Amino acid sequence: MIGYKFMGKAHSHAYRDVSFYFDPAVEPVLQVLCGRNEENVKEAAAKMGWKSYETDWRKLIEREDIDLIDVVTPNNSHAEIAIAAAEAGKHVFCEKPLAMTLEQSQRMQEAVEKNGVIHMINHNYRFVPAIQLAKKLIDSGRLGKIYHIRSTYLQDWIMDPQFPLVWRLSKEVCGSGSHGDLAAHSIDLARFLVGEFKEVNGILETFIKQRPIVEDSSGLSGKASSDQMGEVDVDDASVFMARFENGAIGTFEASRFAGGNRNGNRFEINGEKGSIRWDMENMNNLEIFFLDDEPGLQGFRTINCTEEIHPYAGAYWPAGHIIGYEHTFINLTLELLNGVDKGYSPSPNFIDGVRNQAVLAAVEKSSRSRQWVSISELLQNQKTTAL
Amino acid sequence: MIGYKFMGKAHSHAYRDVSFYFDPAVEPVLQVLCGRNEENVKEAAAKMGWKSYETDWRKLIEREDIDLIDVVTPNNSHAEIAIAAAEAGKHVFCEKPLAMTLEQSQRMQEAVEKNGVIHMINHNYRFVPAIQLAKKLIDSGRLGKIYHIRSTYLQDWIMDPQFPLVWRLSKEVCGSGSHGDLAAHSIDLARFLVGEFKEVNGILETFIKQRPIVEDSSGLSGKASSDQMGEVDVDDASVFMARFENGAIGTFEASRFAGGNRNGNRFEINGEKGSIRWDMENMNNLEIFFLDDEPGLQGFRTINCTEEIHPYAGAYWPAGHIIGYEHTFINLTLELLNGVDKGYSPSPNFIDGVRNQAVLAAVEKSSRSRQWVSISELLQNQKTTAL
Amino acid sequence: MIGYKFMGKAHSHAYRDVSFYFDPAVEPVLQVLCGRNEENVKEAAAKMGWKSYETDWRKLIEREDIDLIDVVTPNNSHAEIAIAAAEAGKHVFCEKPLAMTLEQSQRMQEAVEKNGVIHMINHNYRFVPAIQLAKKLIDSGRLGKIYHIRSTYLQDWIMDPQFPLVWRLSKEVCGSGSHGDLAAHSIDLARFLVGEFKEVNGILETFIKQRPIVEDSSGLSGKASSDQMGEVDVDDASVFMARFENGAIGTFEASRFAGGNRNGNRFEINGEKGSIRWDMENMNNLEIFFLDDEPGLQGFRTINCTEEIHPYAGAYWPAGHIIGYEHTFINLTLELLNGVDKGYSPSPNFIDGVRNQAVLAAVEKSSRSRQWVSISELLQNQKTTAL
Amino acid sequence: MIGYKFMGKAHSHAYRDVSFYFDPAVEPVLQVLCGRNEENVKEAAAKMGWKSYETDWRKLIEREDIDLIDVVTPNNSHAEIAIAAAEAGKHVFCEKPLAMTLEQSQRMQEAVEKNGVIHMINHNYRFVPAIQLAKKLIDSGRLGKIYHIRSTYLQDWIMDPQFPLVWRLSKEVCGSGSHGDLAAHSIDLARFLVGEFKEVNGILETFIKQRPIVEDSSGLSGKASSDQMGEVDVDDASVFMARFENGAIGTFEASRFAGGNRNGNRFEINGEKGSIRWDMENMNNLEIFFLDDEPGLQGFRTINCTEEIHPYAGAYWPAGHIIGYEHTFINLTLELLNGVDKGYSPSPNFIDGVRNQAVLAAVEKSSRSRQWVSISELLQNQKTTAL
Repeated sequence: MIGYKFMGKAHSHAYRDVSFYFDPAVEPVLQVLCGRNEENVKEAAAKMGWKSYETDWRKLIEREDIDLIDVVTPNNSHAEIAIAAAEAGKHVFCEKPLAMTLEQSQRMQEAVEKNGVIHMINHNYRFVPAIQLAKKLIDSGRLGKIYHIRSTYLQDWIMDPQFPLVWRLSKEVCGSGSHGDLAAHSIDLARFLVGEFKEVNGILETFIKQRPIVEDSSGLSGKASSDQMGEVDVDDASVFMARFENGAIGTFEASRFAGGNRNGNRFEINGEKGSIRWDMENMNNLEIFFLDDEPGLQGFRTINCTEEIHPYAGAYWPAGHIIGYEHTFINLTLELLNGVDKGYSPSPNFIDGVRNQAVLAAVEKSSRSRQWVSISELLQNQKTTAL
Repeated sequence: MIGYKFMGKAHSHAYRDVSFYFDPAVEPVLQVLCGRNEENVKEAAAKMGWKSYETDWRKLIEREDIDLIDVVTPNNSHAEIAIAAAEAGKHVFCEKPLAMTLEQSQRMQEAVEKNGVIHMINHNYRFVPAIQLAKKLIDSGRLGKIYHIRSTYLQDWIMDPQFPLVWRLSKEVCGSGSHGDLAAHSIDLARFLVGEFKEVNGILETFIKQRPIVEDSSGLSGKASSDQMGEVDVDDASVFMARFENGAIGTFEASRFAGGNRNGNRFEINGEKGSIRWDMENMNNLEIFFLDDEPGLQGFRTINCTEEIHPYAGAYWPAGHIIGYEHTFINLTLELLNGVDKGYSPSPNFIDGVRNQAVLAAVEKSSRSRQWVSISELLQNQKTTAL
Repeated sequence: MIGYKFMGKAHSHAYRDVSFYFDPAVEPVLQVLCGRNEENVKEAAAKMGWKSYETDWRKLIEREDIDLIDVVTPNNSHAEIAIAAAEAGKHVFCEKPLAMTLEQSQRMQEAVEKNGVIHMINHNYRFVPAIQLAKKLIDSGRLGKIYHIRSTYLQDWIMDPQFPLVWRLSKEVCGSGSHGDLAAHSIDLARFLVGEFKEVNGILETFIKQRPIVEDSSGLSGKASSDQMGEVDVDDASVFMARFENGAIGTFEASRFAGGNRNGNRFEINGEKGSIRWDMENMNNLEIFFLDDEPGLQGFRTINCTEEIHPYAGAYWPAGHIIGYEHTFINLTLELLNGVDKGYSPSPNFIDGVRNQAVLAAVEKSSRSRQWVSISELLQNQKTTAL
Repeated sequence: MIGYKFMGKAHSHAYRDVSFYFDPAVEPVLQVLCGRNEENVKEAAAKMGWKSYETDWRKLIEREDIDLIDVVTPNNSHAEIAIAAAEAGKHVFCEKPLAMTLEQSQRMQEAVEKNGVIHMINHNYRFVPAIQLAKKLIDSGRLGKIYHIRSTYLQDWIMDPQFPLVWRLSKEVCGSGSHGDLAAHSIDLARFLVGEFKEVNGILETFIKQRPIVEDSSGLSGKASSDQMGEVDVDDASVFMARFENGAIGTFEASRFAGGNRNGNRFEINGEKGSIRWDMENMNNLEIFFLDDEPGLQGFRTINCTEEIHPYAGAYWPAGHIIGYEHTFINLTLELLNGVDKGYSPSPNFIDGVRNQAVLAAVEKSSRSRQWVSISELLQNQKTTAL
């Protein structure tokens, strides 16, 4: 695994825990943790249970005792590492968003496909039991034709104008701000539950345009080290409308300026026969409304998806004993390991990553051009053939 | 109508509005408002649309242009007025609790029965559409045998120790504090939905035992007029356990010391086949759980009882356009007027008032004796024959 | 008053009730109700307490015993009636949306201004106590600079494809569907709380394009009278993005196809220092988050705006005894009567109506042109000078 | 560790995870898992990461490579094992309730105290961050004097009359039903947050008095193996009132017959200056009301206790990324290990276990005698001197 901060911790924990709760076809071994700063990576490896560490990811890729490379570095190194890993015949699990640009992501897809390695992208929210229940309901037609999705992913951790210019606020490192960080998740859930996007039109907005510079921008909460101000070149908020291939329409909003919303990843979907609502801060629940419930007894039901009958839930605790954020990673890891064993790339994989990147790119383009942007035309223009 | 404060206002409004929304069999005419202070009652009569006023309730009862006497005075005058009214052949609508003692309430019942007048008691919460839906569900067996009721009626308006000794805190005027004011409502809803009480055991507690005296204690928010402190001789909170005739068990709690609960009249009932929850601060909703809902899709449904299909709701606004507290009085008034027309005393009537008083008295007795008190024995001891 | 269906009932009730709860400077007299069908209007007048009735609105306007004309007819007659009333020197209170087109609305504004009559438009949701509290908080700077508004107005009453072609689904009568009916309210609340719109970009969508024809389309729930299908020429949903003059960005969604949402008029506003959330189905509550609350004790507070301290609330019931939909009309009527007395047109008046119409028109235009539309340019093009 | 079912799994996981998230002073080693059935315990040990296994707990206690014995067996073996372990000089961590009787629990306390070993009891809910915040608020006087606690612990897993006679429904194995299983948790939280119980009065009720017998009653969901019915000799529900030493009053209700409540461990506490609410199904949130908040802006705040500032929360994920049931065990294990290192028995320990057992016993006694039972008298009668 390359990278060991927030996501590195979440992934490491999942590798450790997956066999405790499930019986994956392949047992994960935490072989090598990789990071640039030797002191830090050594300490992190010990803490999180990795057998060894490296400071150069190229060495990691050359090692023969490694089957799977897990890329949890900042966005600007995903492509280089993932492609190198694929070419070295390693399976690749990559953080989202897949890449900095649509073109980069397409090259990544080509690399994994050409080299026949297993690939997956970390859209962990798909693996919340409530989301899996939503998927099952939609796929089995219980909501009928979908009319609407309204999706928000709201946070508030950078609202203070004195919050410094950390790496997540740098276009060079991340490509975008709330857009690639938060909207990417909403787009994935929309693709998973509603279907493919047809066209989008949006706004990327930066409310605080200058922030204090920090010497070490690698953390998420560094203190400003000087009086110098730097330009914020990524978005604080991303808002867009969408039309889907199947006729549904959607609104999407990601923001880091929505006070009181610590991790407000939420959506509502309305179909011909029913509706569902979900909120990550209450992730164990799915609210469901059926239009064909008995008249006079219709209302949103709050389903606590911790019963044995619910996806993944049986492996954990009795009904009503809730699970949390980290379990999304454990569930995803189970799928990844089963894919490695059986030789297929479970969804969401790099194909999903490219599709997601296309929507992200289309919104960015629409924000500049103030025009609707067609996803398929954008993909076409990139001369991708694989899709 | 005798009395014109909080409840006088609610009743007056209901008489004015009932024919706007419904078609009662009898049209109410707001003939005379009665109160002791001429200046105040005159002003109130004008404001609330009463044709005339009186300052002596005995004169009111003698008047021939009056068919129905509405008693909204403090508790210590209910019995005298209601009995006199009944003996004068007037129909009687009385505020709750019916009386100061069980014996008083039984005399009231005798008076209305002997004189053949229509009688009703103002347990208005029965007439919330959501409560009517609850009743329908339970009566039709949708919840099965009832196991539990847990009921709370929580307020916080006298928590400040400097809040003065108003009439509602005087045993001489009210008989009790939170017990007769709040628990009486919970008892009525429990009788309506679960059934008759078998035995009870409880605590009446006074947290603040002395309060500033006010000169005019007739309002609910008078300022203290002196440094003198007076004894609080009613309960601040009433807590009791109950067994019902049908085997259900219940917990009840009424308090004026539950900060943040402005009017927290709430309950949950659990039956063999389902559960319901209700909260007056969200009175339009009923939450319902069915044990026989499809496995994996079980959860409390939030029913917004504003659809035309729900009791009383069709007379008001389209679905989702909520009604409020005052509509409980309008609905009750409709039943009262229809009862007057057809010659029967709609529930809740004085029989319900007596039953309710018996439960109140039993809890008070248990609080003193620290023993369980049987409701039927208590009624027996009062040598009532009518029940 | 001209018109006597859903809105006619709400207005009539408010005229009857306003003096019961408040002391308006002018006492309203329910003089004449006007409608085309004599039998129906006669019955409605009797039911709702109007002294007389007319079947021709022109006669109403000529009557000297009338000071104020209340226009609650379908949208396509607002302009003609309101202008005639103004020219006859009558004050005018008009249902929303003000008109069928921006140009019409501007002529209405000219008429009331030229004739010096009082004018007001029925955006009743401004008069919910929780909304007034929101306004107070924003105006006093408690939320700081506003960044976001996300607003939805969701209903579900026409989701059944067999629901017939009633007048609300006819462009000729209404001008638009969910857009003018629901989004107009959201636009008004956004203007009231956030400020003026700068530019918009949106989608108007019709999901069910053909519906059964009814003989009498004047109701909202008519049964189909034949096998014939007719074209639905208004929108089922209206979705748009907005930029405000003060830099805030917004998303808006109105739909009649959001199952389980009976009257889901909701919004969240995020500012520099705090956030608020409101939901009409829980209209007594305002949720408020302050970024400067003590760290570790920050969270959305649920304020039940029924305390005496809250706007309008003191006139009704004690804290926690909720009010409902109809009280928005009573509060608005108080302002209208006070305006008539003092000689000014309270907000929202026809100026607000025109501004609102401009946003509605801009969204419609953007939906056709697939471009952003500037509100000020649109108003400019209409050569309006009054604004 | 002795025992490997539900609780064995939760404890094992905590030992594995505690060093990943925290830096305990002592590193736990999962040395030996013990169970009666060799095949099963061998498999469980492998699955959960234990180095070896035993089938006789006496052998475990003799082993020198063991420092801490974790007792997660059914209640009827706690005392024997814990006392033997203490006498062998092992630290003891025991599941709740501590014992079958008050006398047994007192002997356990004597044993650990006499042998100077560290002891702790598994009331894991104390270690929810929201509960720790509640404790901090109360201890610092933010709620003032406490008036009320109302506490419920509601489940519904045995409502089906065909649900068989598993071990949790056997008095011989468990001592009681919902009472020792669920009410014990509520009692612990009340002692932690409100203070010591003074006297109690309650009901233990069994709704379904006969159930199908199963051959293997060791699981929680066994199928009935025959047509034979057996007597249920434990309670289905436990309801009681309480007075606390500090003057607070409380209501408690534990039930396995509250449909729709999967794991409804909830309470509200009202104090002189504020109130708090908590619900295990939403365990990351604490609702707080302050009476001294600015008038007009008072309301329950929903605090999501996932911010770094909250107890234990900093070790996990960023704000808004919730944790779940299993984290209560991880947090508790951290305290246990630190206690072992520093040589003290962290709360809740066997002293708390005895106190808890006394309240349980007092309620049972009151249920039989239909009288209030004093806790201190009960403890006195047991001639315990250590307390």
